[in-house]
Amino acid sequence: MKAVGMVVEYNPFHNGHLYHLQQTKKETNAECLIAVMSSHFVQRGEPALVSKWARTKMALAGGVDLVVELPYPFAVQTADMFAHGAISILDALHCQEICFGSEHGNIDHFLEAVHLLKQYEQEHNQRLKQLLESGMSYAKAYATALGQLQNEQSTLDLSKPNNILSFHYVKAIVEQQSNMTPKTIQRIVAHYHDSHLPNEETIASATSIRHHLQTDGLQSISSYVPPTTKEELQRYYTVYGTFHYWEHYFPLLKYRLLTINLEELHQIAEVEEGLEHRLKKAIQQAKSFREFLTCVKTKRYTWTRLQRVCTHILTNTTKKEMNFIRAYKKATYIRLLGMNENGQRYLRKMKKKLKLPLITKVATLQNDPIYKLEQKAAQAYVSILPEPLLTEALQMEYATPPLRKLT
Amino acid sequence: MKAVGMVVEYNPFHNGHLYHLQQTKKETNAECLIAVMSSHFVQRGEPALVSKWARTKMALAGGVDLVVELPYPFAVQTADMFAHGAISILDALHCQEICFGSEHGNIDHFLEAVHLLKQYEQEHNQRLKQLLESGMSYAKAYATALGQLQNEQSTLDLSKPNNILSFHYVKAIVEQQSNMTPKTIQRIVAHYHDSHLPNEETIASATSIRHHLQTDGLQSISSYVPPTTKEELQRYYTVYGTFHYWEHYFPLLKYRLLTINLEELHQIAEVEEGLEHRLKKAIQQAKSFREFLTCVKTKRYTWTRLQRVCTHILTNTTKKEMNFIRAYKKATYIRLLGMNENGQRYLRKMKKKLKLPLITKVATLQNDPIYKLEQKAAQAYVSILPEPLLTEALQMEYATPPLRKLT
Repeated sequence: MKAVGMVVEYNPFHNGHLYHLQQTKKETNAECLIAVMSSHFVQRGEPALVSKWARTKMALAGGVDLVVELPYPFAVQTADMFAHGAISILDALHCQEICFGSEHGNIDHFLEAVHLLKQYEQEHNQRLKQLLESGMSYAKAYATALGQLQNEQSTLDLSKPNNILSFHYVKAIVEQQSNMTPKTIQRIVAHYHDSHLPNEETIASATSIRHHLQTDGLQSISSYVPPTTKEELQRYYTVYGTFHYWEHYFPLLKYRLLTINLEELHQIAEVEEGLEHRLKKAIQQAKSFREFLTCVKTKRYTWTRLQRVCTHILTNTTKKEMNFIRAYKKATYIRLLGMNENGQRYLRKMKKKLKLPLITKVATLQNDPIYKLEQKAAQAYVSILPEPLLTEALQMEYATPPLRKLT
Repeated sequence: MKAVGMVVEYNPFHNGHLYHLQQTKKETNAECLIAVMSSHFVQRGEPALVSKWARTKMALAGGVDLVVELPYPFAVQTADMFAHGAISILDALHCQEICFGSEHGNIDHFLEAVHLLKQYEQEHNQRLKQLLESGMSYAKAYATALGQLQNEQSTLDLSKPNNILSFHYVKAIVEQQSNMTPKTIQRIVAHYHDSHLPNEETIASATSIRHHLQTDGLQSISSYVPPTTKEELQRYYTVYGTFHYWEHYFPLLKYRLLTINLEELHQIAEVEEGLEHRLKKAIQQAKSFREFLTCVKTKRYTWTRLQRVCTHILTNTTKKEMNFIRAYKKATYIRLLGMNENGQRYLRKMKKKLKLPLITKVATLQNDPIYKLEQKAAQAYVSILPEPLLTEALQMEYATPPLRKLT
């Protein structure tokens, strides 16, 4: 059985994802489509709109055969570590190929860029350091330094968000010496951060879909998501009375920032270079998350990076706890979130060959340094719910078996 | 000018407090009545019903001349440290006498008990240790060990809450070699923990008043508090929309307990002997503060002790931060909360003789190890308010000058 991997957030699962999934199946002749999906918080440092369980259902409904979890310490990370975590899990599942969307669409150019970097790594690191010292954000400095390595004819624009992610997938494959073959499909959405819905089209970015869901309600996004996504969002809202936005977590973040000591704050992951002072000062006056981040933001600290910092504060994730990930750069287990019958067949077949333990009950993971962080994130995620929903949602982390879908 | 001190919580100020205050004035011929008052959290490990500012107004309205703050690390403490903090502040203000209510009412017996303890301190400590090892709570073990020192004819019952507090005031005076003369007035309320309001009387315990306020509203307590207390409670409720009960803080406590690491929890003040495991386990299922404490409670961990533990978790107060207090056992400053003209006259007179710096603006205290804890407590206290009230209330800690009352 040929398995093909994808790295996803499905926040929420929309027509663009469906298109990518169908293209992947067609172009790779995949017999089992595996998605490694960010858990409750996503790479931009935001809570996912709905829980990982709800998003797993959307994925299965959309045709994914197996959904496995990208745990918090990899999911809420820069592109580099994010890619390493995802690749290590797909590799452990014996995917033959991995297929990702990019603005660029030509895999050869990504491979070239990675090999260039490997060849001139020292120069790259020097340039990166210089650019960082000039006050540039990490993401921008990294892309700029890479751009300087490429020859002038290169058309691969590494400042584009999906190009840089794709670059890191390829780089992680090379660095982990994985046998997976990388493939890319050109993305057909307008612009990643675009928050206007195209009127006549059926594909819009997840960002714009979330934005319209928040301001205009569920009906306004009907054309851009499969009916099953709409149903799942509706069901979630009916049960929990809310979707999850940063603003809902602001009272918890503010409480935490007010009572945390400066030294403790400095120990939180990604709180560097005296950022703790800026955070402590700004929180005194900020009445909303947006107001807070606007006040803290500088050229160096991008919105996304600050959102990640805030997420780590919210989940109480320390530098020390992240050290393991930084050094090891790979997952330690595969957590199964959901599968259809086809996915189940694949697992039955591969069970004994998997490179990492397959987890269906997290009770066995209590001492795992990666799961420990996933657990805290899961607990922080539900902390905005009223009781008894909070306690019920809390139990789901331990009690929910992998979701099954009959095909 | 003869100054007489009192140690108070005024949670809220009621007719019993008014009686005690008037008796104190009469029996001591005080020319200036000074109250050292617990700030936002009280000794039983609870948030005060209303802020320290509102309670200061009640105190001034009741006839107190000077209100000074008992900072958080002394206020939320066992009787021993609570007394040491309060005595050190009243002593620094040159009170000639200190007058406290007790069930017993005879100061000589308290003095005898303290001198007995000093004489047989080693025996006492041995007994205390044995009793603690048998699983008794600290408060009960301490009172029992003391009781065993007294001769059989002694009528001083140190298991009574105000007797044990009074004992510790006298003990602190002796240990700090203060010149203050201790006096006691017999309390006339029925029972400290009594939560039934006596129908025909005008005096009820603060506990029962809070209980009735919560269940039956402001009107139900009219007979038991001065009109000014009722007005101040009404005003507070109108502005903030709430009084402060533990249940309101439960979502913050639960969030914090869910995301805190075991090792961090062990570093919180008063979390001893593996209590962190019980707390972490119980929080998973508890849907309310009451449910939580009921689940954690044992013979050894009394309700009051556990409430203090929870308050320290809420305010993020660590053992390390409490070390200073434990070793030094004295306040480092006098923070003025309010005064009338008489109190102002006293301060003007004594200004140069005070044994500790008199603080009216806390900006000067930023590096003080005691104020640091008061500040965190003040920030945790307002964290349940909705914005923009939260941010406004937060500023009060820095911006509120001592309250003044025209006589």
